[in-house]
Amino acid sequence: MKICMAIAMAAPLALLGQTTSARKTPAARTLIQELVIANHILANEGVVDAYGHVSVRDDRNPQHYLLARHMAAGLVTAADIVEYDLDSKPLNGDASGGYTERFIHGEIYKARPDVMAIVHCHAPDLIPFGASTVPLLPVSHMAGFLGEGVPVFEIRNPGGMTDMLIRNPELGHALAQTLGNKPAALMRGHGAAVVALSLHIVVGRAYYMNLNARLQAQAIALGGKVTYLDPEEAKKASAQDGFERAWEYWKHKVSRP
Amino acid sequence: MKICMAIAMAAPLALLGQTTSARKTPAARTLIQELVIANHILANEGVVDAYGHVSVRDDRNPQHYLLARHMAAGLVTAADIVEYDLDSKPLNGDASGGYTERFIHGEIYKARPDVMAIVHCHAPDLIPFGASTVPLLPVSHMAGFLGEGVPVFEIRNPGGMTDMLIRNPELGHALAQTLGNKPAALMRGHGAAVVALSLHIVVGRAYYMNLNARLQAQAIALGGKVTYLDPEEAKKASAQDGFERAWEYWKHKVSRP
Amino acid sequence: MKICMAIAMAAPLALLGQTTSARKTPAARTLIQELVIANHILANEGVVDAYGHVSVRDDRNPQHYLLARHMAAGLVTAADIVEYDLDSKPLNGDASGGYTERFIHGEIYKARPDVMAIVHCHAPDLIPFGASTVPLLPVSHMAGFLGEGVPVFEIRNPGGMTDMLIRNPELGHALAQTLGNKPAALMRGHGAAVVALSLHIVVGRAYYMNLNARLQAQAIALGGKVTYLDPEEAKKASAQDGFERAWEYWKHKVSRP
Amino acid sequence: MKICMAIAMAAPLALLGQTTSARKTPAARTLIQELVIANHILANEGVVDAYGHVSVRDDRNPQHYLLARHMAAGLVTAADIVEYDLDSKPLNGDASGGYTERFIHGEIYKARPDVMAIVHCHAPDLIPFGASTVPLLPVSHMAGFLGEGVPVFEIRNPGGMTDMLIRNPELGHALAQTLGNKPAALMRGHGAAVVALSLHIVVGRAYYMNLNARLQAQAIALGGKVTYLDPEEAKKASAQDGFERAWEYWKHKVSRP
Repeated sequence: MKICMAIAMAAPLALLGQTTSARKTPAARTLIQELVIANHILANEGVVDAYGHVSVRDDRNPQHYLLARHMAAGLVTAADIVEYDLDSKPLNGDASGGYTERFIHGEIYKARPDVMAIVHCHAPDLIPFGASTVPLLPVSHMAGFLGEGVPVFEIRNPGGMTDMLIRNPELGHALAQTLGNKPAALMRGHGAAVVALSLHIVVGRAYYMNLNARLQAQAIALGGKVTYLDPEEAKKASAQDGFERAWEYWKHKVSRP
Repeated sequence: MKICMAIAMAAPLALLGQTTSARKTPAARTLIQELVIANHILANEGVVDAYGHVSVRDDRNPQHYLLARHMAAGLVTAADIVEYDLDSKPLNGDASGGYTERFIHGEIYKARPDVMAIVHCHAPDLIPFGASTVPLLPVSHMAGFLGEGVPVFEIRNPGGMTDMLIRNPELGHALAQTLGNKPAALMRGHGAAVVALSLHIVVGRAYYMNLNARLQAQAIALGGKVTYLDPEEAKKASAQDGFERAWEYWKHKVSRP
Repeated sequence: MKICMAIAMAAPLALLGQTTSARKTPAARTLIQELVIANHILANEGVVDAYGHVSVRDDRNPQHYLLARHMAAGLVTAADIVEYDLDSKPLNGDASGGYTERFIHGEIYKARPDVMAIVHCHAPDLIPFGASTVPLLPVSHMAGFLGEGVPVFEIRNPGGMTDMLIRNPELGHALAQTLGNKPAALMRGHGAAVVALSLHIVVGRAYYMNLNARLQAQAIALGGKVTYLDPEEAKKASAQDGFERAWEYWKHKVSRP
Repeated sequence: MKICMAIAMAAPLALLGQTTSARKTPAARTLIQELVIANHILANEGVVDAYGHVSVRDDRNPQHYLLARHMAAGLVTAADIVEYDLDSKPLNGDASGGYTERFIHGEIYKARPDVMAIVHCHAPDLIPFGASTVPLLPVSHMAGFLGEGVPVFEIRNPGGMTDMLIRNPELGHALAQTLGNKPAALMRGHGAAVVALSLHIVVGRAYYMNLNARLQAQAIALGGKVTYLDPEEAKKASAQDGFERAWEYWKHKVSRP
């Protein structure tokens, strides 16, 4: 399945060189290429469907971030990447072609200078935990970063009865406050926001956070006592290598001709 | 998986231009093309298997609707589309080549002048809710339209002991009565009927109704308290953009050569 | 996924004409072609993995049946089909190249003159029901044939402590006795045997029996009361068309070049 | 899905002859080819993702074993295979390019002269059983080898609070002690180690151990009484043919051009 998807992605990827070489900015090109690959990996691995998005802080200006225009992640090409300031205003043109929820990105980048990349997703195994009083806990060492605790964002607190979307800076700010200094927050009835020091790590975290949710649900359903990672185990496990081996594999799957 | 399916679908799609150009009716051609794509998307995304169907009200005559002949949705081409009146009689030829359950479509179009497109499916995560006393409720904002409530059609009420199929106008009428003014009804032991203002929306609703059923079941299985969308949240969430971003993605997946 | 599998299957299918034309028996060729397609469909749809098999009664001699030699169903070609008598002895050569459990087929054909085709499978959603005291019941109208009741074969009764396999005519006979006049029997710790009047129906029954098991398990897990098909509904639903629409779709998926 | 993956794997496989023929060691070439295929099968069948590895004892020197360098199993080629001694030191070069957890392999080969091949995996249906007090038991005859009992390795016992990885010979030794003379051990919060007399059997065991875990969880969820294989049945079932039929099928799926 994944390789087939990769075939589909090959055409957009092929456009990369052409599109970005026209800009004559090799540094930006690399980061944009990475962001396009991150989009395709997230779609290919089922972390996002037609909805959900991934951004990266601009490596030339930490007050800017890069994010695709309003479209499905699996279809994103380099030409679709837009540069935003931290108020989530596009540097070129107006915001009408952007994701409604771009404020998730801008407000977290504002509140968290350490964060370099952000995923917003509706990954299917995360939704039940976002809606349940049962907390998401690390049952697999690949999700040790969950050991810091996963806050749940209740949009009713800052917003009352909404359409559930982070439609403005205020809601984005409230989400960033709920996230605090953690690697991820669940969003009740909606999905999750995941942050990290790099694109590779944020993609790995989003993937394994979703997988861990599935495994935890299965462990609970067995009916016995479940042993989760101890916070110290979780902390040590989360200090590992940044999902480089997984990135290489996932990238291979989306980049084959 | 989906892209592979797309490859398979490419041949039928390729027939579109040829088949419909012979009719010299550009307007109809567009609607038929859309209906063929809707069939392929539903099959490709697992909303229908060899059974289940999708129709659209004729844009030239609201007393008519378009529906494939008796066949699997994944194999439908433009040449397979039949035009029916609201008594579900084909305008050309006899009804022997039609879906047994075409009355689902005809009777709902009769009862609901607002409805422009209908899906009947056996989507696998919907069947358990159709058979259970546990009501289907929106746990994800993508399924806000479920907040209006999802009636369950019990065919025993109008039909007694049947073979479960909507084989005649009377059963179709009874189903339409159960549906009332809602976007969807479950059919006990069978599947669902989903309606909307357009093909794009009805496909999105059928997809996310099924996904929401899976997520709700998972949330229940966790054993904690589950917070569903408040009716007001659901109403606001369901007013969103009509699944255009998803349609573009799903269409891409079934239309690549 | 399915289409990709189909691509893989294309090579074996391509061998069909060549292999069977050498025998100069057009009638047998058609039946063998159908049996090869049935093997590929069952593998492609996940009803069998490397294990499990499907047979058909010889249309030229009801005291004979056709079954592949000992191999994975997904790899079967016409040249791999062996003709057996009802004692499960091959007409040509010795039995060393045959399935260990061919007695499932021979003994059921002996006991059930009405049966024309048999599937033995380890379909994953059936194993839990074979091991549980919870009976398999029809929750979907596509599995109405389950309404006759699904007996569970406990190999310990005739065989004591075995390796679980139907290794001889005596165990095959005992399984046939458990099956009685029903369309299917579960085999505890092992899988199922499914029978029908034709290859198309037996493939459809094996597929929807497995799907129904999944749906029933999901319905039970919701925690509410579950309404199953009434025996009369089940009987009427099972009288339907023989899964022809599904066969055409599944065949399309395994026969594309 | 699997076939598509196979297509992706075709390129690495094509490199085999070229790479290994340069060494002029036909015997090694066969074993290395088999090890590469085992890597690809495990990835293709979902037993491993980007993490997890498989080794084989060197057929020319039982004090050595063969294992890929630090990379995803699905990408392994013959040129990536490294030879280690039983202290998990590479014969050529330093260990910096090796799997962190290669000590799983070295220490088990030391403790178990009968073992010829080892899989370490994070197969998703195994993690819940590793974390739960509910024991993994054989519910399917394909997993009869589980009847010997599946010990659970608690890394806290030998290691206290760790990052969960088998980072040194001491932890590898402790795991080998927990494994004892059994075919497999679960690793709490991590995955499993599976051993066998051959590559074919260890791949089959890893696959069916994972499948059995899923089936057992489903059987438990039904809520009735579950009948597992009796230890004698399990012992007899596990004496079967070594998964040759499955190996041929899985190999076919990863080796098609």
